Amino acid sequence: MSLHQPLTRNALLKARFEQTRAFSLDLVAGLTPEDCQLQSMEDASPVKWHLAHTSWFFETFILSRLAAAPPPFDESFKVLFNSYYVGVGDRHLRAERGLLSRPGLDEVMAYRAHVNRHMLAALNTQALTGEQLNLLELGIQHEQQHQELIATDMKHHFACNPLQPAWHATSADQAPQAGDGDARGYVAFSGGLVEMGHQGNQFSYDNELPRHKVWLEPFELATHNVSNGEYLAFMVDGGYSRPELWLSDGWDTVCREQWQAPLYWQHGDEGWSTFTLHGRVQLEPDAAVTHLSFYEADAYARWAGARLPSEAEWELAACEYSSLHGLFDEVWQWTNSAYLPYPGYKPAAGAVGEYNGKFMINQMVLRGSSLATPPGHARTSYRNFFPPATRWQFAGLRLAR
Amino acid sequence: MSLHQPLTRNALLKARFEQTRAFSLDLVAGLTPEDCQLQSMEDASPVKWHLAHTSWFFETFILSRLAAAPPPFDESFKVLFNSYYVGVGDRHLRAERGLLSRPGLDEVMAYRAHVNRHMLAALNTQALTGEQLNLLELGIQHEQQHQELIATDMKHHFACNPLQPAWHATSADQAPQAGDGDARGYVAFSGGLVEMGHQGNQFSYDNELPRHKVWLEPFELATHNVSNGEYLAFMVDGGYSRPELWLSDGWDTVCREQWQAPLYWQHGDEGWSTFTLHGRVQLEPDAAVTHLSFYEADAYARWAGARLPSEAEWELAACEYSSLHGLFDEVWQWTNSAYLPYPGYKPAAGAVGEYNGKFMINQMVLRGSSLATPPGHARTSYRNFFPPATRWQFAGLRLAR
Amino acid sequence: MSLHQPLTRNALLKARFEQTRAFSLDLVAGLTPEDCQLQSMEDASPVKWHLAHTSWFFETFILSRLAAAPPPFDESFKVLFNSYYVGVGDRHLRAERGLLSRPGLDEVMAYRAHVNRHMLAALNTQALTGEQLNLLELGIQHEQQHQELIATDMKHHFACNPLQPAWHATSADQAPQAGDGDARGYVAFSGGLVEMGHQGNQFSYDNELPRHKVWLEPFELATHNVSNGEYLAFMVDGGYSRPELWLSDGWDTVCREQWQAPLYWQHGDEGWSTFTLHGRVQLEPDAAVTHLSFYEADAYARWAGARLPSEAEWELAACEYSSLHGLFDEVWQWTNSAYLPYPGYKPAAGAVGEYNGKFMINQMVLRGSSLATPPGHARTSYRNFFPPATRWQFAGLRLAR
Amino acid sequence: MSLHQPLTRNALLKARFEQTRAFSLDLVAGLTPEDCQLQSMEDASPVKWHLAHTSWFFETFILSRLAAAPPPFDESFKVLFNSYYVGVGDRHLRAERGLLSRPGLDEVMAYRAHVNRHMLAALNTQALTGEQLNLLELGIQHEQQHQELIATDMKHHFACNPLQPAWHATSADQAPQAGDGDARGYVAFSGGLVEMGHQGNQFSYDNELPRHKVWLEPFELATHNVSNGEYLAFMVDGGYSRPELWLSDGWDTVCREQWQAPLYWQHGDEGWSTFTLHGRVQLEPDAAVTHLSFYEADAYARWAGARLPSEAEWELAACEYSSLHGLFDEVWQWTNSAYLPYPGYKPAAGAVGEYNGKFMINQMVLRGSSLATPPGHARTSYRNFFPPATRWQFAGLRLAR
Repeated sequence: MSLHQPLTRNALLKARFEQTRAFSLDLVAGLTPEDCQLQSMEDASPVKWHLAHTSWFFETFILSRLAAAPPPFDESFKVLFNSYYVGVGDRHLRAERGLLSRPGLDEVMAYRAHVNRHMLAALNTQALTGEQLNLLELGIQHEQQHQELIATDMKHHFACNPLQPAWHATSADQAPQAGDGDARGYVAFSGGLVEMGHQGNQFSYDNELPRHKVWLEPFELATHNVSNGEYLAFMVDGGYSRPELWLSDGWDTVCREQWQAPLYWQHGDEGWSTFTLHGRVQLEPDAAVTHLSFYEADAYARWAGARLPSEAEWELAACEYSSLHGLFDEVWQWTNSAYLPYPGYKPAAGAVGEYNGKFMINQMVLRGSSLATPPGHARTSYRNFFPPATRWQFAGLRLAR
Repeated sequence: MSLHQPLTRNALLKARFEQTRAFSLDLVAGLTPEDCQLQSMEDASPVKWHLAHTSWFFETFILSRLAAAPPPFDESFKVLFNSYYVGVGDRHLRAERGLLSRPGLDEVMAYRAHVNRHMLAALNTQALTGEQLNLLELGIQHEQQHQELIATDMKHHFACNPLQPAWHATSADQAPQAGDGDARGYVAFSGGLVEMGHQGNQFSYDNELPRHKVWLEPFELATHNVSNGEYLAFMVDGGYSRPELWLSDGWDTVCREQWQAPLYWQHGDEGWSTFTLHGRVQLEPDAAVTHLSFYEADAYARWAGARLPSEAEWELAACEYSSLHGLFDEVWQWTNSAYLPYPGYKPAAGAVGEYNGKFMINQMVLRGSSLATPPGHARTSYRNFFPPATRWQFAGLRLAR
Repeated sequence: MSLHQPLTRNALLKARFEQTRAFSLDLVAGLTPEDCQLQSMEDASPVKWHLAHTSWFFETFILSRLAAAPPPFDESFKVLFNSYYVGVGDRHLRAERGLLSRPGLDEVMAYRAHVNRHMLAALNTQALTGEQLNLLELGIQHEQQHQELIATDMKHHFACNPLQPAWHATSADQAPQAGDGDARGYVAFSGGLVEMGHQGNQFSYDNELPRHKVWLEPFELATHNVSNGEYLAFMVDGGYSRPELWLSDGWDTVCREQWQAPLYWQHGDEGWSTFTLHGRVQLEPDAAVTHLSFYEADAYARWAGARLPSEAEWELAACEYSSLHGLFDEVWQWTNSAYLPYPGYKPAAGAVGEYNGKFMINQMVLRGSSLATPPGHARTSYRNFFPPATRWQFAGLRLAR
Repeated sequence: MSLHQPLTRNALLKARFEQTRAFSLDLVAGLTPEDCQLQSMEDASPVKWHLAHTSWFFETFILSRLAAAPPPFDESFKVLFNSYYVGVGDRHLRAERGLLSRPGLDEVMAYRAHVNRHMLAALNTQALTGEQLNLLELGIQHEQQHQELIATDMKHHFACNPLQPAWHATSADQAPQAGDGDARGYVAFSGGLVEMGHQGNQFSYDNELPRHKVWLEPFELATHNVSNGEYLAFMVDGGYSRPELWLSDGWDTVCREQWQAPLYWQHGDEGWSTFTLHGRVQLEPDAAVTHLSFYEADAYARWAGARLPSEAEWELAACEYSSLHGLFDEVWQWTNSAYLPYPGYKPAAGAVGEYNGKFMINQMVLRGSSLATPPGHARTSYRNFFPPATRWQFAGLRLAR
């Protein structure tokens, strides 16, 4: 999977391992042990659990399988911090992760240090096989995914507190969008028989493979993601009260959940505000709209006389025309593609084969990356996925037609 | 949409209207007014409701828009028998359709006669425009769809009765499958850049359009649908207790619903039985397995070292190699394609635009037709669709690889 | 239990059996088989089920135990029409009673005739023992209870139909209340050490026994039940929006169920209407308010500066001062007494011991009787009982202080 | 309400205030900030919330109403730590108390210190009126109630952790019961016209008043509470699988919740264990059985050929015959009395009138006190109350007949 010689690859991954593990700790600066235990809904895990689970991944899939395996840090962690890998045993109930005051955050930090120490020892002695280095790379990417979840989950946890706590010093999630001053419009693509999916020797998840041909009709893709201001125009035009704009399941959800605006938005005496990592702030019309469900993105597109792109269209555009604004680092962009296996897809061997494949139902693909995606994690073939009613991710949209 | 001259088309549709309306009444022979009121779950409607709703369709979209529109049979029916067309007003709650003892079945039959009389009067005087004839054709197809639902819903209603009533004289839903004596195997297809979707002048739903190009890798499709006996081997091999065979949502459903066999199967002293339109009978090993959810079909395919076909693969095979057994008239065959719009899809204009498009989320496509599909209703480009946990339809599978 | 000689008692009960059985059929005149199958909520059973279950009672507890027992009318009825007697075997699910189209109403009528024929044969030959005559008397009273439930359940079933069907020719449930022209006020009682509970040789349920002493402080009881007009004053004064007037569980229910008026009331252009056995009609201010939950009765009393009586107070007043208006035949009157066993209570022996005792928790006592109570069924010691959120019964209130 | 002169009463209450406030802190020794945030179910609050809410009570009902009221410690606490007093404004959602990481435990401790400081200042300057001293006394009793809830809630929170943490050094909740060596039997009481309810000048809650007459038939009360060993005999005899032993709602609960033993009991290779404040330990047969619902207590009594006492019987026995074992300080004892107002009951004036009265529905009375009740809190007229399915309290039973 790599062009590097084993020695070089070991060194490279060691550096990335150290950076990634350190970055997780940087991320949670400013959070108390009590903050790190919050679980506001089943979908969102406590920060403490994320910190432990990412360590469990390295311990379970690498350290415990070493010829000279270190003793487990704590036998009970095997079950407590398994997320969904039925191939490696029982799991603690997802909905009850917030009920684990023990182990405390300090103990989880000690667990992290233990795992780091033993991983570095193995890397220093070059004890890892090529396959183990592959798992190390997967573990690093895995921890990066959880870094984004730490941001989105923590935002949700804090939003449930009437005190509306501020975590970060500024509200990066309300910054004007990329290319804000540039003319907004569409770029045309001619389509045809093209290829999509990961290529090359760099890392990818199994769900980005195999690279395969698809036929695309000509299409256009918007130069910008949709902004808060544009989305407000949809709302003012009755967007949340016109069933003809919505998919049937979407309209049912609007009615049942009484949605009237994106998640976290509130209307008060001073107009619209939203909750951010910096607490509650005024809505910035020039920021990309985010915390939309697929249903809202789809309804907006229909209202706008456009549609959502397919993931193939998005990927082609991203490869061909990289100057489109905000493809990355702004908001994930919902596509109208269901999350399904590519033709010829094969899950990775072993328990890590559960990483992606078994979730290929009832989810829609998002492309790009968000302000909360760690540097270096995104790529044009990356497939993010969530159920269509999901709103707590940094998810927006870009129009196609 | 038709090659026939207006006069001829009018005559042709008149004949098909009469046949279809009469066939609905033939179907419900042997059912009492009490039977026709049953609603065993929100998804399954009372037979009486189906009989009224299919009439409502003609009254609402054709009769009420005639220049010389007949008076409505009953003003209240406008709301009572609207299914999901928000474009034409309010609807009675779907879950409460079984609570309508009034109007009685006799009144619904009078409603059907009223609609028939006025439709035939219009057809006899050739009062319908080309567009209205299109709606008539849609209404006929619509009633045929409900004819299949009458069978599947009634089966579910009766299955809830501990007396396990028999409706039909024989159990056609336990007949040995097509091509039973022929060798079972796979047929190979070379794929390439092919076309799919409806073509020609005959009727199709809007969701089968536009015809478009897709790229297919070479694949193989099984000559037969999977049989009860083959499915039993999966069960004996622990199919319902091995999470590694299931999609994650599927496994959650298996656990929550405690599935251990297809819907309607029961194990007793004399082995496996199943509930049919003829009541409870012994399981026939050589019949095609049916009443499977997508999750079960998918798990079976994984267990068998194969996969479900895509809808494009199925359609190509059905067009190229029509001798494959049981493509039609046996069981609907789950595909691994999500129900999404074809590239360039445009919903029909007006309220009938709600017919298909707004359901294009959270559903998987089934292809073919079942023993309960009325004659003449199926075609190779037909897209049936249900959520992946659905089990009360006549749905089975055919393997691909 | 009776002063009559066996011969006389046999004759007397035979006459009452015939009258009661015939009255059930009179009651359901005007209902179609489809009406008789409706089940609008788990608490309310189909009329057809009531007609069958009351027959099941005689068949199970008397006929099947005769030395020369007739063959069961249908073996499956043993389970289908058992309500809650675990002592006599399995029961069909209460929530699924509305899913029994088979047996049809005609078959249930044949069942009734079969039971009648065999009961009368036994009575004509004086084949019943004293204990069996006791069970016969219980069965007659039991059928009378179900006659009231036929009215209240059917009212609820019909109320769910947007057509708001009328069953009776007039709306007896909106008649001006008893003593309407008389001065409204309170009657004083001195209390002291009094006795309550059933006395004498006539029939009573086991829950009215034993007669026992209670100490009562002096109290006053209102001369009339509360009227619709009086209740409207409570509503106008914000009754449904002032938590301080409500018990905590009551207020939770008001909020969760969004109660704003008694069950069946609606406000329209022409003021308040209510649903009756005669369909929807204008609210009659001088009728006794009904279809109240205990919570609403209790809140009204608190708002009025009064309280609900205890069942001992009610019973003492009813015995001492029978001219109080509307104690009987108007509305059941909620008391502030929990439904608990009297000191020394012993359930009846055998399976009929389940008749009352096992329900002595989570329910409040109502006293009196309603317009739907069959003639001859009520008495001063009668204890009716329902959970405090129940609204579909003919239940109102009378103030005490 | 007190015989003491104002000066003396001020001093006395000041001492008790200080002791009670200090005792709350002693109680939570050994708990981390993370432990104090746990909320395992809606009924059980986080320890941090208890610590804050008891302070809120003093601040809201006394400090904020002083002529020279100190500034509120934090304006937001007014809503965050209001439990159910609608008379003093909005409340934070009970089910979301565990989502408040902010304020942190340290801030709550500062809040406690702030309230203590200002309360003591007021007491030192004798600034409180007689009515305010009454509220102070109520606040002290209130905090004592929450001290018991801290124990029962924390036990439930910890029981959800697979690590089964030990909080206390020993398991006091598995000690042999009072009078363990003495002969077990019944004591007879003659009943008659007796008085019950609080008397004298000492504090009581409003629900213990007014003292009033009741008539009691002769009865017997058991000398001991039921033990674990005795309860095991009920289980061995099929107690949890015999519907005839249960109230109907109780049996429904057993089936729905799959109860097979008291809360916290587990059966393993070494027999029965239970979860205690000291973690999981072997079951002690000679300890009083606890963590029973009313339903279980009632079913046990029926199985034993006895019954639960009424609260009047219990109170009479406790007054007349104080040497009965384990009336206090062992387990609360379920009675068969519904929690209803005594004749002539008047809620306290003002918002504290919500303390008791509005809960007088759907609950059963428990008498005595438990091992977790703070010293000095119990008395013979004390009425504890919980819904009949409640199991997380230290609740057992004593038989009557």
